[in-house]
Amino acid sequence: MRAAVLTGIEQVEVQDFPEAEAAPGWVVVTVEAASLCGTDSHQYDGRIDTPFPRVPGHDFAGRVERVGEGVDESLVGAAVAVKPSLPCGECDQCGKGKPADCTRKKLIGLWSDGCMRERIAVPAVNLIPRPEGVEAWQASLLEPLAVGLNTVDRLRILLGETVVVLGQGPIGLALTRLCALSGAGRLIVTDAREAPFEIARTYGASDCVNVAEVDDAKQAILDLTGGAGADIVIETSGFPSSSEMMLDLVRKEGKVAHIGWANDLPPLPVVPLMAKTLTVFGIGGNGGRGQYERALELVRSGRFDLEPLVTHRYALEDVADAFATAHAKTDGAIKVIVEP
Amino acid sequence: MRAAVLTGIEQVEVQDFPEAEAAPGWVVVTVEAASLCGTDSHQYDGRIDTPFPRVPGHDFAGRVERVGEGVDESLVGAAVAVKPSLPCGECDQCGKGKPADCTRKKLIGLWSDGCMRERIAVPAVNLIPRPEGVEAWQASLLEPLAVGLNTVDRLRILLGETVVVLGQGPIGLALTRLCALSGAGRLIVTDAREAPFEIARTYGASDCVNVAEVDDAKQAILDLTGGAGADIVIETSGFPSSSEMMLDLVRKEGKVAHIGWANDLPPLPVVPLMAKTLTVFGIGGNGGRGQYERALELVRSGRFDLEPLVTHRYALEDVADAFATAHAKTDGAIKVIVEP
Amino acid sequence: MRAAVLTGIEQVEVQDFPEAEAAPGWVVVTVEAASLCGTDSHQYDGRIDTPFPRVPGHDFAGRVERVGEGVDESLVGAAVAVKPSLPCGECDQCGKGKPADCTRKKLIGLWSDGCMRERIAVPAVNLIPRPEGVEAWQASLLEPLAVGLNTVDRLRILLGETVVVLGQGPIGLALTRLCALSGAGRLIVTDAREAPFEIARTYGASDCVNVAEVDDAKQAILDLTGGAGADIVIETSGFPSSSEMMLDLVRKEGKVAHIGWANDLPPLPVVPLMAKTLTVFGIGGNGGRGQYERALELVRSGRFDLEPLVTHRYALEDVADAFATAHAKTDGAIKVIVEP
Amino acid sequence: MRAAVLTGIEQVEVQDFPEAEAAPGWVVVTVEAASLCGTDSHQYDGRIDTPFPRVPGHDFAGRVERVGEGVDESLVGAAVAVKPSLPCGECDQCGKGKPADCTRKKLIGLWSDGCMRERIAVPAVNLIPRPEGVEAWQASLLEPLAVGLNTVDRLRILLGETVVVLGQGPIGLALTRLCALSGAGRLIVTDAREAPFEIARTYGASDCVNVAEVDDAKQAILDLTGGAGADIVIETSGFPSSSEMMLDLVRKEGKVAHIGWANDLPPLPVVPLMAKTLTVFGIGGNGGRGQYERALELVRSGRFDLEPLVTHRYALEDVADAFATAHAKTDGAIKVIVEP
Repeated sequence: MRAAVLTGIEQVEVQDFPEAEAAPGWVVVTVEAASLCGTDSHQYDGRIDTPFPRVPGHDFAGRVERVGEGVDESLVGAAVAVKPSLPCGECDQCGKGKPADCTRKKLIGLWSDGCMRERIAVPAVNLIPRPEGVEAWQASLLEPLAVGLNTVDRLRILLGETVVVLGQGPIGLALTRLCALSGAGRLIVTDAREAPFEIARTYGASDCVNVAEVDDAKQAILDLTGGAGADIVIETSGFPSSSEMMLDLVRKEGKVAHIGWANDLPPLPVVPLMAKTLTVFGIGGNGGRGQYERALELVRSGRFDLEPLVTHRYALEDVADAFATAHAKTDGAIKVIVEP
Repeated sequence: MRAAVLTGIEQVEVQDFPEAEAAPGWVVVTVEAASLCGTDSHQYDGRIDTPFPRVPGHDFAGRVERVGEGVDESLVGAAVAVKPSLPCGECDQCGKGKPADCTRKKLIGLWSDGCMRERIAVPAVNLIPRPEGVEAWQASLLEPLAVGLNTVDRLRILLGETVVVLGQGPIGLALTRLCALSGAGRLIVTDAREAPFEIARTYGASDCVNVAEVDDAKQAILDLTGGAGADIVIETSGFPSSSEMMLDLVRKEGKVAHIGWANDLPPLPVVPLMAKTLTVFGIGGNGGRGQYERALELVRSGRFDLEPLVTHRYALEDVADAFATAHAKTDGAIKVIVEP
Repeated sequence: MRAAVLTGIEQVEVQDFPEAEAAPGWVVVTVEAASLCGTDSHQYDGRIDTPFPRVPGHDFAGRVERVGEGVDESLVGAAVAVKPSLPCGECDQCGKGKPADCTRKKLIGLWSDGCMRERIAVPAVNLIPRPEGVEAWQASLLEPLAVGLNTVDRLRILLGETVVVLGQGPIGLALTRLCALSGAGRLIVTDAREAPFEIARTYGASDCVNVAEVDDAKQAILDLTGGAGADIVIETSGFPSSSEMMLDLVRKEGKVAHIGWANDLPPLPVVPLMAKTLTVFGIGGNGGRGQYERALELVRSGRFDLEPLVTHRYALEDVADAFATAHAKTDGAIKVIVEP
Repeated sequence: MRAAVLTGIEQVEVQDFPEAEAAPGWVVVTVEAASLCGTDSHQYDGRIDTPFPRVPGHDFAGRVERVGEGVDESLVGAAVAVKPSLPCGECDQCGKGKPADCTRKKLIGLWSDGCMRERIAVPAVNLIPRPEGVEAWQASLLEPLAVGLNTVDRLRILLGETVVVLGQGPIGLALTRLCALSGAGRLIVTDAREAPFEIARTYGASDCVNVAEVDDAKQAILDLTGGAGADIVIETSGFPSSSEMMLDLVRKEGKVAHIGWANDLPPLPVVPLMAKTLTVFGIGGNGGRGQYERALELVRSGRFDLEPLVTHRYALEDVADAFATAHAKTDGAIKVIVEP
């Protein structure tokens, strides 16, 4: 079969690749759509250092092609979304026959070959049935929604609270929509580009602040909260200047969530945490407790419309363009989809 | 001044009434709008037994006309909403000078003369500033929203959960809107009339079940939840047949809230509570912890549109018609407003 | 091997029984100690109607004797506690290879032969490693602790809150100890016998009320709370007279948990739930989310001393006496242990 | 009357001082005992910069001597504890006649003259009735308990969780006791002195680590948690080396509370917060929502024995020695009491 292969930094090409096989408990899935995320970009430009050659990609959906021993035959042909992390196979939970509870799961596409190819084998426990009416490209975009759900589940927004979402990339936009659906009152978002604001408004943002345009972004946001600070601040951008103003933007006894990941983030001063009696939530992933399934239902019911997020679509043969676009964020790129 | 006076069961007339005076710490408010609720109807038909003659009414808004000693003069002329319960003046909290924390507050209009008149005196601590753009008739409708907020605050809906709201009177409709805003997924509502369903759909209901029309209401609702029962069931109707099916409609480990008040409610069997590991919340009022202020903000921001709830408006002179309409629920009556 | 067999109502005898076999994924455990609980008594006297002949018993501990295919060989010889419910083998979760997540688990000893014998086969996922220093008789008593943990986990006692535990059988005593450990302030317990009060005091009860001795049990308890009612009331007795006073014993905005199971429990009136803004938790089991493991650690660390609970011990050959004692609750019986 | 007066950095002397007067709504309290805390020491050595001369001190208890206008006369002679912060008199809450809800309260002894004198005037709303059996010196020590309660209230310890308390000064020891009472399982404490460990063990610590004695404090603590990290870590010492290891000591998905206040605290790295999905609670005070009253009840009931904390007692005339001892922490000083 054909596969996209990273052969070096910023080098991706389509090659012939060995066919996927279904081990006992595993299935082979035909990849119908795969989406690119920040992790793929970081792997592409070398900030995440994985061995080459490597088939990248972890967010995808498709149909079950074949099943391995011990897996229900009736799954063949089923439309599925796929959870992107593999059980380690070595920990206590894996040893007890509970791979779904593995605490050391590893993302495919980084430490094993990923989904940017025609077919891939995954454990049957990673499958989520894709209901009628949810297309493969939609189901390939569940990850940012699952991360967002893990965030709002922990924040427990009280109806009407003022929320600030810093950064309007895919995760930031997902949070904007999920906070709007969860009862946020005033919903202030920021970015350094104008492009995402139209989507943000569609998703429920009440106020959009372009941090590259205003003189004093922090003051502009504070003014929108009436000076007292927001009930909740969520940092998704990973930009030091954004992370830095987080604690100043939240009110006394407020809550902060940090999702934006970067190696050069400034550390948090401790005294304001105490002086303002804050609660800080570190968000490291999608939680793995039903968030994928709930994200799928939000898409199915139409409450989360993914259409505005998808700015570019490529065939597998054009995967090099897909990576270049996603990495450069040129041309208003938010989410880039590859359809093998 | 003129006042509506209950002179006996189902007898209300407009009479001359002594002027309101502002004691120290109190203010006189000009009543611009008052709304009728179930309590008023129960007092009107004698199910709540209060002394006659009595000026009824507790949900109202207006402007400060005069202030008593010790109250900031600058309040004169201010547009206000008014919390409807008076501190008892005798408990520990009142004795400590903290009337706002009184735990034995009493509703005006029942045990003291209420708001169905041109002017009324209330403690300054009962005032809530009414912001620009919120009209008096809107501010006279905060009570069902505050009760609803007290309910969703305790239920803590997780984004996407299935919610059933039994009964679509004013409180039921408020809950429908508040649950939709708070992240309910599938949102099923019931009533024995068709009239409220149009409003319910506008407010975010996904499914409306007319319990007077279907053969087996319980089964019809369960079917809409896929057979497993809802995550959350909220009973607002006060009808025995509705309260009775509540525990059957909720899923294992689900939550139930009961707001619908009536003297003939069937008691709850205990074994299903245990067998299904349920949590039951009894809701007895508006909580009194900022819910009024937050309700006002939901109205101000346009997230809760009160217009559909108001089906009838009367001048003070026509208050007898107002009570008759609200009590009989004729002519599609949901909320009846009196504007003195 | 030898096994206790229920051959009819109140008829139990020791018989020869076919040897246990370890199917794939299962293990054979040598039973070192088994404890009797209320469910066993109800099965014995026919209130729970199971087919005869039947080997009763579900609460036990021992050592792994043999392992079936696919189970780690190194488990042989391991000291274990055993979770007493079997996965159904037919539901979605079981079908996905996640038997630990089965939602229709069935207690052994009722619908399949139980643990009152020398050896029994159970799924490997039901095993909990028994640490150094925890004896088999202790590990056979985890069930009431796990149920109790499931209760205090949901109640979330605030340090210093006043708690009432109604009934001081094994579950009631477990709750007394767990509430004391969890921060209860005043801790009031009730029973109709004097016998358990000495244990209750050792476990941390501050006040013991013999409901058979006082004129007005409800008033006596209320007086101990200063008249205002307790923050939390936990009903474990299953007696109608106890369940009936529950809502009167709790303060406004307080919490109630109901664990005591009986078919003749009076239903709960709804109006007090609303008037007092109560929260009611139905407790139907041990929760199955780590409570067994945590119960084991409480025993291991010595924070929960099980010794006072065990009033009688029997060899397997004397199992008829064991059942008679446990059922009649004669001779101050709290917990009866059988050691095959 | 006589008063202790700070006349400059590390200079305190006893002087004659004008008599206290009770304004309307205020009372004059005879100071029977006052305790010294870290804030007093910081003011004494100039790290907190307040104007001189100043009467220091804010933690005290005594009896009501006189009452001002509008205060219940029957309070005269009452034994009381006193909340140490004064309402600002200028904010919205104060303006509404709700001084107890003031959000800008100021500690006495810093920005106004404090309690290290024979008599002091305070608002009646600051009084807490001191029950029979609670002596003045005990009631002068409520502040660290109230701060500790505010901490455990937010952390919500699950019964049996492993807790680490870094630092065993007064606040750290209070947390040790409160965590033990709240259900902590393994309870590991640290300090750089041996002296507090005996108290810590009495209070319920299971393991004491002298960070000045072990080679690698972090590893020693981790080893006590079985390598996985604690469920909860509470930093109370204010030492950079202690604060620095906090995030390494907590398990994945664990909770951290930071109370130890210092200007040279190292900032928190953000990536570990995300990678480990942590929740961080900044604790800035006693919460002001009933914690004082609950602290008093813990003392009254004997569940929190304050005796071990009090290492030194002085008469008012020897206040200079009291400050010197408390500041230098010589002679095993934990809590120093002054009894005017």
